[in-house]
Amino acid sequence: MPEPALGLDVVASLPEAAEALLDGRNVVVIDVLRATTVIGQALAAGAARILPAATPAEARELAAGLEPGSFLLGGERGGYRIPGFDLGNSPLEYTPERVKGKSIVLASTNGSVLLARCRRSRRTLALSFNNLSAVAARVRDAGGSWVAVCSGKLGRACLEDLVCAGRLGARLGLAGEEGPADSLDDARDGLTIARLLDERLGGDLAEMLRRCAHGRYLESIGFGPDLERCAQLDILAGVPEMAGGAILPG
Amino acid sequence: MPEPALGLDVVASLPEAAEALLDGRNVVVIDVLRATTVIGQALAAGAARILPAATPAEARELAAGLEPGSFLLGGERGGYRIPGFDLGNSPLEYTPERVKGKSIVLASTNGSVLLARCRRSRRTLALSFNNLSAVAARVRDAGGSWVAVCSGKLGRACLEDLVCAGRLGARLGLAGEEGPADSLDDARDGLTIARLLDERLGGDLAEMLRRCAHGRYLESIGFGPDLERCAQLDILAGVPEMAGGAILPG
Repeated sequence: MPEPALGLDVVASLPEAAEALLDGRNVVVIDVLRATTVIGQALAAGAARILPAATPAEARELAAGLEPGSFLLGGERGGYRIPGFDLGNSPLEYTPERVKGKSIVLASTNGSVLLARCRRSRRTLALSFNNLSAVAARVRDAGGSWVAVCSGKLGRACLEDLVCAGRLGARLGLAGEEGPADSLDDARDGLTIARLLDERLGGDLAEMLRRCAHGRYLESIGFGPDLERCAQLDILAGVPEMAGGAILPG
Repeated sequence: MPEPALGLDVVASLPEAAEALLDGRNVVVIDVLRATTVIGQALAAGAARILPAATPAEARELAAGLEPGSFLLGGERGGYRIPGFDLGNSPLEYTPERVKGKSIVLASTNGSVLLARCRRSRRTLALSFNNLSAVAARVRDAGGSWVAVCSGKLGRACLEDLVCAGRLGARLGLAGEEGPADSLDDARDGLTIARLLDERLGGDLAEMLRRCAHGRYLESIGFGPDLERCAQLDILAGVPEMAGGAILPG
């Protein structure tokens, strides 16, 4: 049986991403501010792997099973580094000097939670603007049916992840669904919504990140430079992919 | 203490509408296709009240406590009238001849579920394009902090409810949040997203309803005329409002 034609469904936020929707699926996880940007940067800087954790406590548990010196604890709550952790959630911290060869146990508020839910997905890729073309090429090569899941922010849809999902759809040449919707389940508006937002705001990604709610918050607590970094399109060639619960360079 | 300035937060879909977000709040419920349109039409046609039910079984239970002859069962699954129910979920069915003086027990797939979750909200209004200006005036007169909740479709965000929420924001003169976001909870992107979608697609509401996923599905099963009706702006002056678990004409 031939693989079905390339398709992309877009899920607007974490609460919409029921496990039933992720199990056995080809998933692209998006958390532009900042987990998937951090993951791309950490692996590009030579980190061995990322272990996503849903909570700081789960991160510490995961770390307890690792060789001392082989790992770093990373993550944030409220945008700030978690007390006792080695690294926060700024991509600028994940330099080769800090992370080369290490496992990173990562507990962010939104993206890590979503990644931890993807353990039974068929494939899981981590997308940011930094590696958008690389991820698009990987998806196109694989073909078939994909779901792009926006992490959102504290249980709500956010602008920057939807714009990123829309840009992925555009890069893949996929419009929102059109034509008659034969079954109630068939047709979803996620990709249409994401593409419209990208068309409207994607022309200046840095400005879009300064405008969105989470960007304004990060700027207000001193992470303005992170926004510039998170807005950079196609500066990384790697495609982080989950395998056996860890995210590996790809 | 003066009432806080008028504010509108937009929640993109049912899974994002945790009860904690609704309890004690001023809520505007949106299910353009078709529950809140039906509710507006039924009450304008003289129905005494609407009793929202989360499931067909709950609708039958609610009905069992009512005087025979005093009520009608309405609602849909998969867009079709529920077997044994008197009415489906098409606004065109809710004529004065059918509904005048009756209680309507309504079980739709998305909007009724959300309305049933609003029982501890401070105020709950039902919004559609049909009564948009009337609802906006009521919200403006009341002032304070409001949350517009899009029902969405089968647990996912949908275009038409977001456009309607955006139009409400526009009518109230509220942009998405701007300026620094002082706390992580402060700033949400929902209104920004909704306003952008309304600016892009709100110029021709009937066309937008024919384009969105649920509209295409309804058209495919023969409910095309419903879309024209649901797209009509400001044809109703009533503001349906919840009181004691029932939605009353307002």
